[in-house]
Amino acid sequence: MEMVPSEKGARMRVLILGGDGYLGWPTSMNLSSLGYEVYAVDNYFRRGACHQLDVEPLLKTPNLHKRSQRWKEKTGRNIHVAIGDITDYAFLSGCFTGKVFGDDDDGHWSPPDAVIHYAEQPSAPYSMMGRKQAVLTLQNNLIGTCNLVHAVKEYKPSCHIVKLGTMGVYGTPNIDIEEGYLEVNHKGRKHTFLYPKTPGSLYHLTKAQDGDMLYFYCRMWGIRVTDLNQGPVYGIFSKESKNSEDLATIFNYDDIFGTVLNRFIAQAACGHPLTVYGKGGQTRGYLNINDTLQCVELCVRKPAALGQYRVFNQFVETFSVNELAERVRKAGKIAGLTVEIKTIENPRQEAEDHYYNPVHTGLTDLGLKPHYLTDDGLGQILDVILKYKADINRDYFMPRVKWE
Amino acid sequence: MEMVPSEKGARMRVLILGGDGYLGWPTSMNLSSLGYEVYAVDNYFRRGACHQLDVEPLLKTPNLHKRSQRWKEKTGRNIHVAIGDITDYAFLSGCFTGKVFGDDDDGHWSPPDAVIHYAEQPSAPYSMMGRKQAVLTLQNNLIGTCNLVHAVKEYKPSCHIVKLGTMGVYGTPNIDIEEGYLEVNHKGRKHTFLYPKTPGSLYHLTKAQDGDMLYFYCRMWGIRVTDLNQGPVYGIFSKESKNSEDLATIFNYDDIFGTVLNRFIAQAACGHPLTVYGKGGQTRGYLNINDTLQCVELCVRKPAALGQYRVFNQFVETFSVNELAERVRKAGKIAGLTVEIKTIENPRQEAEDHYYNPVHTGLTDLGLKPHYLTDDGLGQILDVILKYKADINRDYFMPRVKWE
Repeated sequence: MEMVPSEKGARMRVLILGGDGYLGWPTSMNLSSLGYEVYAVDNYFRRGACHQLDVEPLLKTPNLHKRSQRWKEKTGRNIHVAIGDITDYAFLSGCFTGKVFGDDDDGHWSPPDAVIHYAEQPSAPYSMMGRKQAVLTLQNNLIGTCNLVHAVKEYKPSCHIVKLGTMGVYGTPNIDIEEGYLEVNHKGRKHTFLYPKTPGSLYHLTKAQDGDMLYFYCRMWGIRVTDLNQGPVYGIFSKESKNSEDLATIFNYDDIFGTVLNRFIAQAACGHPLTVYGKGGQTRGYLNINDTLQCVELCVRKPAALGQYRVFNQFVETFSVNELAERVRKAGKIAGLTVEIKTIENPRQEAEDHYYNPVHTGLTDLGLKPHYLTDDGLGQILDVILKYKADINRDYFMPRVKWE
Repeated sequence: MEMVPSEKGARMRVLILGGDGYLGWPTSMNLSSLGYEVYAVDNYFRRGACHQLDVEPLLKTPNLHKRSQRWKEKTGRNIHVAIGDITDYAFLSGCFTGKVFGDDDDGHWSPPDAVIHYAEQPSAPYSMMGRKQAVLTLQNNLIGTCNLVHAVKEYKPSCHIVKLGTMGVYGTPNIDIEEGYLEVNHKGRKHTFLYPKTPGSLYHLTKAQDGDMLYFYCRMWGIRVTDLNQGPVYGIFSKESKNSEDLATIFNYDDIFGTVLNRFIAQAACGHPLTVYGKGGQTRGYLNINDTLQCVELCVRKPAALGQYRVFNQFVETFSVNELAERVRKAGKIAGLTVEIKTIENPRQEAEDHYYNPVHTGLTDLGLKPHYLTDDGLGQILDVILKYKADINRDYFMPRVKWE
């Protein structure tokens, strides 16, 4: 077992907010397997919303307590879990005092060395459904983050916050997207700003807003934060779950919680045309779920300095939606499937043909070894999804939420 | 009576959110006297917080219903009032359907043509007191604004939102502060961004965040918004209240809700040293309360276009804190007072010596006739405050909230 040193020389403690989610659960297992002491909490927002909106994930997944039990049975390792909402400060405080987890392993509790903050309402279409969903998104994402900052200040000011952001905060400006900051030359003078954001949904807006909040408190209180502006993630099994279906992540392929490449793969698997929104020239940076795990672990292991608001653009390569569709068609062909591509009306308000050149060197400099999207790799994901072909619900694909 | 035409040829209807406040009540009277049909609502946050924190305003002011009755007695005009919270969508809806105001004057209700949005928690020190106050500020300012946008979309998409912002959203960048937008030249390409913000308190952050939200919904839904990034306002009586003490505004001179120049005048009046925070080089743009009224009325009369997020920097001249202190000392001397200036430790985290050159031509182009700060004008305000000298509480001056 690789031991990861903390300030105290004991195993590093990591609190994972949103530890039941698409990335939260794989991260919990990954850090646990690497020797971190992992504390995972979740409010089950995703599970509840999937029931309410009738967009069930592809695989049935046990609840977080059961997941943790199975993990323990398979690996002998503990993932400590608690269910609650970080907008409830009493609950969040309990994550820092240990109260919500009961007694710690060795009876000597100390607050986490790092917090990975996945606990945000993560869907752009959800945030655009109506007023209640917009308010829930603001409430959850901003009050949750504000509580987190105050808990860190109260219980452990040196605790490193690793927040999952999104590349979507930048929008599609006509200049290069730098990594976090932008030096502006204006009328003969210079100033470095946090890179200006032009988000394209209320959800993306809240991620810009909470980034601004974290940057603010770094400047005021000297706390330390890494903000990971992540592109859309694809993939289903990670290293820790690939031979254990009962450790699988929550995999959505629907119009609300599914990301585009996962949806395309599900569509290809069940013989549904790939649904390209509008012209399909929308270009974004993508990454494999295993690269998310690498990036997050690297950031925890190599934290931001005190007072630093460190920003990375977290993706490994860019594709237009049309390019992704072609890649999936090709992988399908290799697997013996006929994959049709269909253009449908774009439910979003976004540029469908635009300049896109984001810098993304920070994480590679930190040590990231990227997995690029190959025909082979895509074929492997498709093979896995094909096993669950009968469970794919073809009613989940068409977008129901319009931006206007 | 000057009649202001609306789309329907009837009198223009203006809903004022925060209509009981330092600027909200004077705006209500000003627009009413100009012939607008005024609907003023408030949740009494300020009154409640002043009691809780024991920072009572200089003058006792009747509640909003009584203020409206007195206004009617003096002028024969109606200011329709209702008490409630715009974070409660049922209440806010009632402001658009008329339900909260009872029957309309003429029995033919239609939703407001413009909304003036003052209903935000307005104090930087309040927002830095602790977690609860930070959460209240986020909650009030962001959920309130989100509700407002949705109410406009639901009841009257052409309704013009005039939101009071603050120059404090910009911070003190080392380049000129443009009016709302910044064209950036970067690596041979150009893009125009919303001007990047670097706010210096959680309160100021929320004003940047709600500006970003309004800009987003202008782009998505084609609503129209004017955001007035206002500097600190000074003055006590406006045209409509100057001969009627019972129509006076809520005037705070304390460390939480008082703005710097009003606090200095109160200090000079009661023989307390003017308290300069730190080096006193902090430079901001200031304006007289009567100029706020002018600016707001101009914006209502000449609205933003549909889909436009129009931004003005609302102030008429800049001063450093040291310059303001000297101006007050001089005005005091003319009035026969000895005014001492005292430097105290700065409770805030802010640059005390910095470049500051904000553009502010938009409102002048729209028709603003500025009132500059003259010795005479300052002397008149001082004379008024001197009448209430015995009521000034000297315990209110020293800052109790530290940023760190």
